[in-house]
Amino acid sequence: MATKGDVLLLDFWVSPFCNRVKIAFAEKGVPYEDKEEDLFGGKSDLLLKSNPIYQKVPVLLHGGKPMCESTNIVLYIDETWASPPLLPSSPYDRARARFWADFIDKKVFDIGSSIWKTKGDELEAAKKEFIEILKYLEGALGDKDYFGGDSFGFVDIIAIPLTTWFLAYEKFGDFKVEEKCPKFAPWIKRCLERESVAKTLPDPQQVYEFVIMMRKMHGIE
Amino acid sequence: MATKGDVLLLDFWVSPFCNRVKIAFAEKGVPYEDKEEDLFGGKSDLLLKSNPIYQKVPVLLHGGKPMCESTNIVLYIDETWASPPLLPSSPYDRARARFWADFIDKKVFDIGSSIWKTKGDELEAAKKEFIEILKYLEGALGDKDYFGGDSFGFVDIIAIPLTTWFLAYEKFGDFKVEEKCPKFAPWIKRCLERESVAKTLPDPQQVYEFVIMMRKMHGIE
Repeated sequence: MATKGDVLLLDFWVSPFCNRVKIAFAEKGVPYEDKEEDLFGGKSDLLLKSNPIYQKVPVLLHGGKPMCESTNIVLYIDETWASPPLLPSSPYDRARARFWADFIDKKVFDIGSSIWKTKGDELEAAKKEFIEILKYLEGALGDKDYFGGDSFGFVDIIAIPLTTWFLAYEKFGDFKVEEKCPKFAPWIKRCLERESVAKTLPDPQQVYEFVIMMRKMHGIE
Repeated sequence: MATKGDVLLLDFWVSPFCNRVKIAFAEKGVPYEDKEEDLFGGKSDLLLKSNPIYQKVPVLLHGGKPMCESTNIVLYIDETWASPPLLPSSPYDRARARFWADFIDKKVFDIGSSIWKTKGDELEAAKKEFIEILKYLEGALGDKDYFGGDSFGFVDIIAIPLTTWFLAYEKFGDFKVEEKCPKFAPWIKRCLERESVAKTLPDPQQVYEFVIMMRKMHGIE
């Protein structure tokens, strides 16, 4: 078992990517030190040195060794602290889980951000694409409780922190996820009942206020 | 060991992504059936059914079960046929390998394609970014023979098929990778001496002619 000082997360409270790492640690029961980065005031030298290419959080330092990119970090956590396993055991189910994690990484946050960054036709196109993406995810979920089946796991950890931004998308996009994707909403609720998730994720109202501030910074009225 | 009919690859000869899968199979000594897709005449129903989201090659069908996205497929191959291992064994080295594979996936082909799809300032910007990307990869390679150290492995398999397109980038971008990235060129040569690579990859001259055809299709003179 790690000692707390050995495991350091460079973090930012509203980042869904950082929150994936925190949920994974909570699931594994791994203690860690959390260092909130001041992304607007100036990134720390440790962040810039540890992630010179992307200069982004999260960065995980384990015994001083840096790792970047949240999905990669969650896989590292699963390989380093084996119990309980986050990924399924069969190679086919693992490939499926990685496929959906990658799909989520490529689509959800970027298309979601287009909803609060654009207007008019661009906004309508972003909304349409965003709902299509959630429809695909509803298909992957099927009638299961979680993406991997009966128990909360890897794809749930990758996806659930992104949903804290949905209220902001709904407000600026004038739509309701629950109406458009009736299967997706109960999955969100189910995940939020889990302690590792509930204690990690920020209030969507606070995320919405953060997005209002970001819009001002981007000069969007 | 798999029987040949059990493992089917939906393939396209010039795709660096398909060629990753073929090199991984060659390294593992796994026999497989190869079905060349007619991407311009019409994709097969099997491709469209197996990869409904991206509708792209490669698709691997193992016992009829489809898997998509080349890096994911190479990981599946490594988990299914254990010997010789492609990924390193320590979680930290594995995370590093996945980081570089993901960096390559995000950058090399798309920026490289900008070199033959654009002109003027856009072309110059694409060239500059492409060389920066290779400089990062030179940094990751360091003084090692391969990305993982002394032996050919996962990151090499992800990267090397992309280099068959470099001649086309050089011709349309008017530069030489060897001059800009003196450490990267010997790594390419070293990989090409390996049987799994040599027997899989197409001749860069044929790739260049394919790119000439693609430019015509895109209306680029």
